[in-house]
Amino acid sequence: MSSRTALDAPLFIVLEGVDGCGKSTQAARLVQRLERESGRRVLHVREPGSTALGESIRALLLSREHDLDSGVELLLFAAARRQMLRERAGPALARGEHVVCERFHASTFAYQSAAGGLDEREVLAVLERWAGEPKPTHTLLIETAPEAAALRRGRPGDRIEDKGLGFQYSVAAGFRRYTELVSGVLRVDGMGSADEVEARVWRALHGD
Amino acid sequence: MSSRTALDAPLFIVLEGVDGCGKSTQAARLVQRLERESGRRVLHVREPGSTALGESIRALLLSREHDLDSGVELLLFAAARRQMLRERAGPALARGEHVVCERFHASTFAYQSAAGGLDEREVLAVLERWAGEPKPTHTLLIETAPEAAALRRGRPGDRIEDKGLGFQYSVAAGFRRYTELVSGVLRVDGMGSADEVEARVWRALHGD
Repeated sequence: MSSRTALDAPLFIVLEGVDGCGKSTQAARLVQRLERESGRRVLHVREPGSTALGESIRALLLSREHDLDSGVELLLFAAARRQMLRERAGPALARGEHVVCERFHASTFAYQSAAGGLDEREVLAVLERWAGEPKPTHTLLIETAPEAAALRRGRPGDRIEDKGLGFQYSVAAGFRRYTELVSGVLRVDGMGSADEVEARVWRALHGD
Repeated sequence: MSSRTALDAPLFIVLEGVDGCGKSTQAARLVQRLERESGRRVLHVREPGSTALGESIRALLLSREHDLDSGVELLLFAAARRQMLRERAGPALARGEHVVCERFHASTFAYQSAAGGLDEREVLAVLERWAGEPKPTHTLLIETAPEAAALRRGRPGDRIEDKGLGFQYSVAAGFRRYTELVSGVLRVDGMGSADEVEARVWRALHGD
């Protein structure tokens, strides 16, 4: 996407980062801007979710009723993602639409391996094998200090957000580690106003 | 369990076979007989299910609302089974109880690989890695002709049972293939009366 013509091919853009980093705000802005500038439709999805199965799995994962270990979480995230790719992202790209997705493999890596204790190669292998196609064309990591993200997020709301600031630091370290293991992840400074971050996201997608 | 003393150690017994082969009837009988003869408590579980997470996953898998491929099914079965092992079977065995479980790895192999098209080694690898402990001490395959099982079962009831007799033949072939790949599976003739099958199950467990 280093020139205008790159917008002519369908893009599959993933936004990653800790809770409260601004992913949802930036995803909404990116969807609008891509639609405006490319003339293509843009599918906006989030993980886990965006399918009937995925929303059910999301509810299971976030419920405080269940005591789930990282292995169970990994399998559930992989199942939800495979379904989303088959049911939503794959068909949209085939129709020539862009796809913007909040959270993908880097989040699973950060939460279930770096913060959750699973072997990092095993986590990547499961995701690659069972939720490997279609692959994102761009993965952007929005980097925000965990304290700032916690303030943006407000008070804790679910089983994952209950885990506290120490946990969020492990997650943030996991995202950075992911960029060491997987090439091509674009790191974007998430501090500052939404307009400032949006401008950085757009420049990163254009290779600037 | 070739002598009476073998009942002194906690057993983890899995009953496998096509829908309608008599697993539930035999599991209930086995639970009663084990309790009577060993004096130990016996935990009776079924897969997927027997935990809050597992019952939710069971509902997702059987619902006609979802169009799930074999890969998504495999991941969901593995997640439910891992949770059952952590939450139910593992603690029961540690307390010195026996465990009787309806369906386990052979069913996933038969449905998602033999009948579902996934690579058989990959299916076994996922189950072994993510739902591998504790391992069953005994796996019994109750073999019934698919036509006889269909009669016992009555009319179709859910997404899996909708798939017809040809599908059930593939599943039955998958169970037989599992016994070739995984050593130690005990094959039990499931034709005849419940009393007759119960006697065969008991003899198989005693190594006769």
